Amino acid sequence: MTWLELPEDTGFGLANLPFGVFSCRGRVMRTGIAVGDAVLDLGGLTEDPLHLSGSLNELMALGPRAWRELREQVTDWLTQPSCRRVVEPHLIPQAEVRMHRPFEVADYVDFYSSQHHAENLGRILRPGTPPLPANWKHLPVGYHGRAGTVDVSGTPVVRPCGQRRDGDDVTFGPTRRLDIEAEVGFVVGMPSEPGTSVPVAALPEHVFGVCLVNDWSARDLQAWEYVPLGPFLGKSFLTSVSPWVVPLAALDAARVAPPPRDVPLQPYLQDDAPWGLDLTLEVRLNGEVVSRPPFASMYWTPAQQLAHLTVNGASLRTGDLFASGTVSGPERDQRGSLIELCEGGADPLTLADGTTRTFLEDGDVVTITATAPGADGSRISFGEVTGQVMPAR
Amino acid sequence: MTWLELPEDTGFGLANLPFGVFSCRGRVMRTGIAVGDAVLDLGGLTEDPLHLSGSLNELMALGPRAWRELREQVTDWLTQPSCRRVVEPHLIPQAEVRMHRPFEVADYVDFYSSQHHAENLGRILRPGTPPLPANWKHLPVGYHGRAGTVDVSGTPVVRPCGQRRDGDDVTFGPTRRLDIEAEVGFVVGMPSEPGTSVPVAALPEHVFGVCLVNDWSARDLQAWEYVPLGPFLGKSFLTSVSPWVVPLAALDAARVAPPPRDVPLQPYLQDDAPWGLDLTLEVRLNGEVVSRPPFASMYWTPAQQLAHLTVNGASLRTGDLFASGTVSGPERDQRGSLIELCEGGADPLTLADGTTRTFLEDGDVVTITATAPGADGSRISFGEVTGQVMPAR
Repeated sequence: MTWLELPEDTGFGLANLPFGVFSCRGRVMRTGIAVGDAVLDLGGLTEDPLHLSGSLNELMALGPRAWRELREQVTDWLTQPSCRRVVEPHLIPQAEVRMHRPFEVADYVDFYSSQHHAENLGRILRPGTPPLPANWKHLPVGYHGRAGTVDVSGTPVVRPCGQRRDGDDVTFGPTRRLDIEAEVGFVVGMPSEPGTSVPVAALPEHVFGVCLVNDWSARDLQAWEYVPLGPFLGKSFLTSVSPWVVPLAALDAARVAPPPRDVPLQPYLQDDAPWGLDLTLEVRLNGEVVSRPPFASMYWTPAQQLAHLTVNGASLRTGDLFASGTVSGPERDQRGSLIELCEGGADPLTLADGTTRTFLEDGDVVTITATAPGADGSRISFGEVTGQVMPAR
Repeated sequence: MTWLELPEDTGFGLANLPFGVFSCRGRVMRTGIAVGDAVLDLGGLTEDPLHLSGSLNELMALGPRAWRELREQVTDWLTQPSCRRVVEPHLIPQAEVRMHRPFEVADYVDFYSSQHHAENLGRILRPGTPPLPANWKHLPVGYHGRAGTVDVSGTPVVRPCGQRRDGDDVTFGPTRRLDIEAEVGFVVGMPSEPGTSVPVAALPEHVFGVCLVNDWSARDLQAWEYVPLGPFLGKSFLTSVSPWVVPLAALDAARVAPPPRDVPLQPYLQDDAPWGLDLTLEVRLNGEVVSRPPFASMYWTPAQQLAHLTVNGASLRTGDLFASGTVSGPERDQRGSLIELCEGGADPLTLADGTTRTFLEDGDVVTITATAPGADGSRISFGEVTGQVMPAR
């Protein structure tokens, strides 16, 4: 029950309460919570410097007890009739605010945890060899990306230049194979000590919330550079994140078992209370849905990714972001990247306007959204991560 | 000429003046400059908050003009007899101070720019195939490492655990192939704009200084995990840096031409005024010199690495660290890693105490030092980066 009039079927109901950082009316950046079509101005309402710092990092560093107490407090404010007079003036229409990058990224790690995606890429890029690397079912393969170029949804995607192989030649110029990767990101709040590892069960102690990620990729740059040390310039020009971070606590109803495992797991990766999540993503290209990747099909869960990332004693910092890797389901219209959707360029997509696409053209707009089951039969919205391709400079 | 009495042959003379962050006598961390056997307490002398912030980042963000002016000012303080009375009380014996991580690391990139190292690894790990990857002479191969586990010299090296292949099995436990990588690191002061690239000639506009790096590596973890996305847990447990950052301006006399190129370079990598650097590294294992890697033999220069890193429009931040990759020369006693020095384990090193080593044992201490030619025939010291191996937890 709430005194608010929420739009029917909103994904930003009381079961969600995602955090973001916004500005409006010339005031300093502040923390807000999406509620229906509005933003609750937490900075203005509380006048707490914590919510006026321009990033979620200080809040995230307080740890799970503080997160829970704040969530309960906000629920009270939005439900107790006695609070209405004080709270209502701090609800601002979302259409009037500008969203910013919600947190300062410490380290950015990108995993590769969809079996369908890994097999599709293996089949397309390395035909005639086993589609999965030998290690793939033993550990969540991952690598470090560039934290300094993670930016918020809406940041223009300037087509990157670089070296690529052109037949027998090596040439330089704007990428010809600009792609997307539809992913889900996990944001670390509580740090860990160097030399210690984080068990799978400790995910909720460390992870503050969940966002959407588009890991823009230049496939031709990547293919030429990535042996033997992995992706570098093919990924480092921009990674976009959604402005709203959904609290992990909002996703209890979305928890599911991951797919069955066919290789025995090392003890540090075994999970009694699994953290598969039933998110459904949608990928739109110029407004048209081209894919609906199911996150529940991911082989490795975020709890396993976190345990793996720290099993060597590597410490966590507030603001660490680890992403799932491209989410692809078993069906063709569930693939989370264009290189999969167009079979490496061999089978272009035809769009509603009659044009075809293999990879992105200048001017193209890609938008990724997601929803998940929330408490009491509600739906949780993750908002969107979007970006438009600009010509190379 | 200086009023100071400097030890003969000091590597910390007026031609060097490297920056670090130290604490002593219970006072807050502050910026200092190594001068002979002393530290000039810049925080105490100036009482400027810039030098009392506990990291070099604010100073580094001011840019090359401010760096040059400060260097001139410090030279004046240490040479003008009239300054002696005010300055001398702020010289503290190095033996009395504790050094800290000198800067907050934004992004950490590690290159792979020694042809001898790359060929040695190729020969040892992939016998029967061409030792260099096809891209190696076209671009400086590199990858992102974990910024959050870069720490200062002296930090204990806790032996990491992880998965490794054991014949046909996959097992878990402490690494059996703990190695070093002797490298040189370049520290970015001035940021760059997203979507722009930094030309090779602009190195001195962006790079504040140079330090030593030991990129500790667990070779068995790395060998199992690194296909197809590159090194991850095999490297991310700890990267050690020396406490003193030598200003790039101190290295003018050390500039040399890199080795001749046998593949034409893309225009963005061509350098008319090359930035090879004549540093001589020394690697000591339990006090005994086991290698003297020559940095002048590196195929790719830091200016080329910086141009490559940004050619796709990836932006720089203050505190970005990019390291050279393992420095190995053409001779066996010039190799910068144990896997090369012991031929992958096939030919152990014999130490002065009669013991042999392939990879590191618990209790081993590795120390890397370096010197370079300085102005007026002096020598520039880089101090040292050291660490002792502790048993796995």
